[in-house]
Amino acid sequence: MARRKKIYEGKAKILYEGPEPGTLVQYFKDDATAFNAEKKATIEGKGVLNNRLSEYFMTGLNAIGVPTHFIKRINMREQLIRAVEIIPLEIIVRNFAAGSMAKRLGLEEGAALPRPIVEFSYKDDKLGDPLVPEEYIIAFGWASQQDMDDIVALALRVNDFLSGVMYGVGIKLVDFKIEIGRVYDGDYMRLVVADEISPDSCRLWDIKTGQKLDKDVFRRDLGNLTDAYTEVARRLGVLPSNVTHATKPTLIN
Amino acid sequence: MARRKKIYEGKAKILYEGPEPGTLVQYFKDDATAFNAEKKATIEGKGVLNNRLSEYFMTGLNAIGVPTHFIKRINMREQLIRAVEIIPLEIIVRNFAAGSMAKRLGLEEGAALPRPIVEFSYKDDKLGDPLVPEEYIIAFGWASQQDMDDIVALALRVNDFLSGVMYGVGIKLVDFKIEIGRVYDGDYMRLVVADEISPDSCRLWDIKTGQKLDKDVFRRDLGNLTDAYTEVARRLGVLPSNVTHATKPTLIN
Repeated sequence: MARRKKIYEGKAKILYEGPEPGTLVQYFKDDATAFNAEKKATIEGKGVLNNRLSEYFMTGLNAIGVPTHFIKRINMREQLIRAVEIIPLEIIVRNFAAGSMAKRLGLEEGAALPRPIVEFSYKDDKLGDPLVPEEYIIAFGWASQQDMDDIVALALRVNDFLSGVMYGVGIKLVDFKIEIGRVYDGDYMRLVVADEISPDSCRLWDIKTGQKLDKDVFRRDLGNLTDAYTEVARRLGVLPSNVTHATKPTLIN
Repeated sequence: MARRKKIYEGKAKILYEGPEPGTLVQYFKDDATAFNAEKKATIEGKGVLNNRLSEYFMTGLNAIGVPTHFIKRINMREQLIRAVEIIPLEIIVRNFAAGSMAKRLGLEEGAALPRPIVEFSYKDDKLGDPLVPEEYIIAFGWASQQDMDDIVALALRVNDFLSGVMYGVGIKLVDFKIEIGRVYDGDYMRLVVADEISPDSCRLWDIKTGQKLDKDVFRRDLGNLTDAYTEVARRLGVLPSNVTHATKPTLIN
């Protein structure tokens, strides 16, 4: 492949200039980080799995009319995406208490919430991605009130859809994080789901056993992260072709 | 079981008085009808499958905060539900053209729609459940404008969730029909999903092969209906215990 211009390198992904204006190539690394990069590791195969899984979820969202940045997967580690103007927020939807919310409110992990809660962190590694009320977001001009209304509506649609996907394969969607960006078609702006959707960005618990199938396996040293992600991919029938575990034949044929 | 009072008998289900005020027992028959009951058959095992599948979908909806009439499954053919005041509408959500819509608009079966479309039929067997514009519904007082706004929002949430469930197991949700009822908690009225959600009330196509896994198998004489419904149940890991086909061990254990 010809030399490409690197646009951005993050903790788990690299963005390269795409083949056409308005596109980027998103490369999935095997790097895992947690606790704002205080904990780091390279986990072989994670990037391949997340590339496939993000393709799978974004394709599903596109199909139900939730717009995303995803165009197509290029190879094992790369996908073609639309270049978007990222809104500097982590948009977190929670169905059950876990992680930072459980800690902040003194709730037991897994406690049911009265309804799905959408919350926002300001994307800034130096500040540790602090939780911010919607009021801050509007005041600082990171997004408009109209954007925020649309973002909440999009986030709740993603939640309903992903909850369904996971329910169908015996997994509880505890919470997840998305990013949203703006794309411009001439004068027309619309918001699209960007970044990635994968077990790096979701909390996924087996419904029957409670087993964690997400990045908490790495954060909390609960076992082999690739095995956990492979289990999610296997249930969804989206295993990369180089993985030889048994798959659901009805989906793979 | 002691003699029970029959409240209502429909084409595929019977409602009996429930054990407590405000509850009913919903019994799933093996009867299948199509074309407003011009075509009829008894299909062994259909009631058992639909009882399980409706339990599965309603439980999932309850879990994401979409209220339903479902309380619990009682046995192979019966479930306990809340008594509701049924709004006399079939609420149909379409993601792809099929059935009566494809015919009415001269669209090819399976043609993508510009966005999910919610439409309404007036529930009246003698009239053949005619399609009605929202304007009729409000004018005749079958539901208020506020009800209709809430019904559309509920129907679209059900669509996002069910689309996800089906996507997770390699099935395309082409369209589905729900009914909605009013329940009263003191002075407070809320709308809940009622009736059933099953392959009797959805169009389900295998994503890869296009194979129909729903009541069209019966309507159009495409094969064995129980086999089609069993395939849906098998993929979702919700097979009744008397069915001995191979199941997904990760969900059944």
